[in-house]
Amino acid sequence: MHIGLIGLGKMGFNMRERLRRGGVEVTGYDRNPDVTDVASVDDLLTKVPAPRIIWVMVPAGDITGATINELADKLDRGDMVIDGGNSRFTEDQKHAELLTAKGIHFVDCGVSGGVWGLQNGYGLMAGGTAGDIERALPIFDALRPEGERADSFVHVGGVGAGHYAKMVHNGIEYGLMQAYAEGYQLLASKDIITDLPGTFAAWQKGTVVRSWLLDLLVKALNEDPGLEKLGDYVEDSGEGRWTVEEAIANAVPAPVITAALFARFASREDSSPAMKMVSALRHQFGGHATQPAK
Amino acid sequence: MHIGLIGLGKMGFNMRERLRRGGVEVTGYDRNPDVTDVASVDDLLTKVPAPRIIWVMVPAGDITGATINELADKLDRGDMVIDGGNSRFTEDQKHAELLTAKGIHFVDCGVSGGVWGLQNGYGLMAGGTAGDIERALPIFDALRPEGERADSFVHVGGVGAGHYAKMVHNGIEYGLMQAYAEGYQLLASKDIITDLPGTFAAWQKGTVVRSWLLDLLVKALNEDPGLEKLGDYVEDSGEGRWTVEEAIANAVPAPVITAALFARFASREDSSPAMKMVSALRHQFGGHATQPAK
Amino acid sequence: MHIGLIGLGKMGFNMRERLRRGGVEVTGYDRNPDVTDVASVDDLLTKVPAPRIIWVMVPAGDITGATINELADKLDRGDMVIDGGNSRFTEDQKHAELLTAKGIHFVDCGVSGGVWGLQNGYGLMAGGTAGDIERALPIFDALRPEGERADSFVHVGGVGAGHYAKMVHNGIEYGLMQAYAEGYQLLASKDIITDLPGTFAAWQKGTVVRSWLLDLLVKALNEDPGLEKLGDYVEDSGEGRWTVEEAIANAVPAPVITAALFARFASREDSSPAMKMVSALRHQFGGHATQPAK
Amino acid sequence: MHIGLIGLGKMGFNMRERLRRGGVEVTGYDRNPDVTDVASVDDLLTKVPAPRIIWVMVPAGDITGATINELADKLDRGDMVIDGGNSRFTEDQKHAELLTAKGIHFVDCGVSGGVWGLQNGYGLMAGGTAGDIERALPIFDALRPEGERADSFVHVGGVGAGHYAKMVHNGIEYGLMQAYAEGYQLLASKDIITDLPGTFAAWQKGTVVRSWLLDLLVKALNEDPGLEKLGDYVEDSGEGRWTVEEAIANAVPAPVITAALFARFASREDSSPAMKMVSALRHQFGGHATQPAK
Repeated sequence: MHIGLIGLGKMGFNMRERLRRGGVEVTGYDRNPDVTDVASVDDLLTKVPAPRIIWVMVPAGDITGATINELADKLDRGDMVIDGGNSRFTEDQKHAELLTAKGIHFVDCGVSGGVWGLQNGYGLMAGGTAGDIERALPIFDALRPEGERADSFVHVGGVGAGHYAKMVHNGIEYGLMQAYAEGYQLLASKDIITDLPGTFAAWQKGTVVRSWLLDLLVKALNEDPGLEKLGDYVEDSGEGRWTVEEAIANAVPAPVITAALFARFASREDSSPAMKMVSALRHQFGGHATQPAK
Repeated sequence: MHIGLIGLGKMGFNMRERLRRGGVEVTGYDRNPDVTDVASVDDLLTKVPAPRIIWVMVPAGDITGATINELADKLDRGDMVIDGGNSRFTEDQKHAELLTAKGIHFVDCGVSGGVWGLQNGYGLMAGGTAGDIERALPIFDALRPEGERADSFVHVGGVGAGHYAKMVHNGIEYGLMQAYAEGYQLLASKDIITDLPGTFAAWQKGTVVRSWLLDLLVKALNEDPGLEKLGDYVEDSGEGRWTVEEAIANAVPAPVITAALFARFASREDSSPAMKMVSALRHQFGGHATQPAK
Repeated sequence: MHIGLIGLGKMGFNMRERLRRGGVEVTGYDRNPDVTDVASVDDLLTKVPAPRIIWVMVPAGDITGATINELADKLDRGDMVIDGGNSRFTEDQKHAELLTAKGIHFVDCGVSGGVWGLQNGYGLMAGGTAGDIERALPIFDALRPEGERADSFVHVGGVGAGHYAKMVHNGIEYGLMQAYAEGYQLLASKDIITDLPGTFAAWQKGTVVRSWLLDLLVKALNEDPGLEKLGDYVEDSGEGRWTVEEAIANAVPAPVITAALFARFASREDSSPAMKMVSALRHQFGGHATQPAK
Repeated sequence: MHIGLIGLGKMGFNMRERLRRGGVEVTGYDRNPDVTDVASVDDLLTKVPAPRIIWVMVPAGDITGATINELADKLDRGDMVIDGGNSRFTEDQKHAELLTAKGIHFVDCGVSGGVWGLQNGYGLMAGGTAGDIERALPIFDALRPEGERADSFVHVGGVGAGHYAKMVHNGIEYGLMQAYAEGYQLLASKDIITDLPGTFAAWQKGTVVRSWLLDLLVKALNEDPGLEKLGDYVEDSGEGRWTVEEAIANAVPAPVITAALFARFASREDSSPAMKMVSALRHQFGGHATQPAK
């Protein structure tokens, strides 16, 4: 199998390598001349044999939209586009309609595994028709870890279902990280804990909280035991937000995932207007002291 | 009626004045010679006619405990102590036992109203026996606003019930303030709102959210429309914490009050260990950029 | 002044009455023949003198959209539409564009006060141009409580700002109600509280938590002291959801308002899939007993 | 090595077996005659060679307290007690003082691993002096998984530190479970997800959220794909509550762990007094329909 891969950033670059190691021929395109295999998307399309499969691995939103628009113009009937980026699942239907109208197939695929995917393989969640998924299986098999397919790959449902599952996956991820982080702060706040990194390390085997994220947490503490080099500013990408929006849309209480999202928002504030107001109110009714603005 | 009042701080000072205006004779004692009426507690006890009523209005915890211990030693059978401070309700039973063993009566009374109580009158929640409450009614009547007694005074239950009610009152207060504060930040974050102070002002009459705290919020914005002079550091006193602890003890979900408490905790952190850990984890799995420690 | 009012439901019916008491002539239309003044919108438009002002007070969403579309077709240059319903602020711009293209003016106005507005007057938050707001002032003045205009009316900003402010108002309302509700449950869970309704009643004057909602809470407890007739099922209308969505869109932490929203979602679940999963997990790792499905 | 083990319940029974497999001789006592090795604690103490090590594995609280009191009476100078139960860390200092006064050594040890510990080994967190820990190492080594000691055992700090770490571990566990559970509900609420169990299964290898709890979740869904047999009632043991209490005591914001705890509280309510109040308030101000009590 020989496919095209558009987007060779942090994720796509490693995926190209893993695909090649797994026996899938890949022609990759990226705007960055240092990593691209070809000079242009047009060039890519001439290199990939028909019927083509083009994996899109570019930032979600406008860039993915523009890429899929371009492919809709340039691909042929029978070709297939797989959006492996973190697109919002609501975009998939639009992209599928655009492509399907021209006889081009579309699959959305959530990809998890981060920078470790090259080494460990990626967890994959795909949405699309059974026939389209079947056709792309060799790609999925090369990307995912060795072993049982069902442990790392799922055909979640129709178009959009793969990205929906990936969105929920990331929402869960927010919650898991925040749970560990709260535990970290609780241990760090207590003098009687004299071996904090060792405590997390000892949770790696045997405990109920063992996980891959815990292993990474141990690794982070090994590198910087007090996290002294790090700021507490945490970005969020779209998927945490979308997860909460879906919780709202479906009337699902999601206090843990939402708390994790809000903690990130708060981490990025230089000062909190809300807490200024609480300070103002306490002063107004109780004469409580306030602190001046920094 | 002539009572003793120990503690002439922000609250006690004003209460002495309101009591006097209401026809209750008050001998006040405070360690601060500028405000005290007498030189010592002993002095106070000679001035107040027997059977004495001594209102204690000192900081909760050790100072209240020491004051009540002292009174247990110095008062006579038939005297009464009223703890009007913000003591934890669990302390009241201990104080009552200590005093009752010596024939001294005890009432706990939650007092709300802040620095405005002198002018507006105080909301009062009392715990104790019916007889003791009855005996102290002239004091309560002088402290509370004019009008129906039931609108500003309640005999909540036995010893401790007054402080329990006040604790819950303050927990609610945390939640109310945070709700307004979140709304403030939402309005402040939106360019299309060109008259933010005017919006809050317009809520004072007619809307569902009108309240005394809203009136104070409007006052605060009048004094400093962008809250630019204020820091976002917010203290908490014991009662918010105790409310959440009671929620836990009684298996009552209290997400709003707890969120308000945690927001105060977060407001006081120079940097968040938890969010450093989240940043570390994102870097570990995804290679996401971190920010250096400040 | 003589205006048209479309929508004579719980809100519109009372508003018609208050407007008339305030000296504004009103021709009202509703699909319900028992309350309408005219047989049709067409009929209404012949009755209201030009340049017309038509106040739309129908359910947000499709019905408001359809009504404004109809008015866009039937009104004349120089007429004005005021949307006083609970439309999402993002709809206002669309409605304004549609109308403005035909020379019809548009104002959005958030209206608070519920069923008590007839008696007490409504709190009003308007968005639009200064000229349009000026033109509609006699209506606002009739609807709002007597007294200072600034205490119950605000020109918040351009089109959409009125509904944005109303949305935030309702978000705050969710938080305030939940704070009182948590306090209620904390008091109700404690045996030592022997006069729960009296406790809330005593908060009405003097305390920091006094508010109109508290007065209503006291009224509710007077009518049904243990709330024994009531189920715990609570609907939410759009505005709580939109407030949280705006919090997300603007990266504003809003844990209190969100907790209030999620509590409503949870109140409507017959059983919680999430908690079934927690039960399943506890059983899996710890052999903890589960309860069978009801 | 030959030790005594008091308590052969769900945890202790398996631990006796794992210790024996690991070459530690164990005399176990339990009130249940079907599982006990000896007829009484006195009997146990005659069987275990001096200086004795007695591992206590009974329910936290009164039963642990009574057991340690009994041991304080019956053990000899130089003997050692290890409390492996889920005692609150604040109890450890009391127990240590009681025992140390008689020359008896004390170690607290958090044990994680649930019913799987027999097979997988237990994660262990110990508090005590370096000498005491050293002496008990053969026990810890038999209980923990094979492999690096540091991956499953830690000497956290002085007396109490082991249980503190276990408490935080369990707090994190609450958060992790709730995060997965929210994700489960989000997937279950969406029609486009046609293979929900398969989605979780596919997360087991490769994804960021892979963990032991996720493996158990997959196992639970294999056994009952829709969790249809399960109720949504979830108990909590002390440790989640203590974690939140410690968060409060140390001013650590812990919204995720707390949300997980409150979700359990709510799961156990037949009806929510708080939500009844919200329903009552909505009815009062807006005339919104209520539902009758069930």
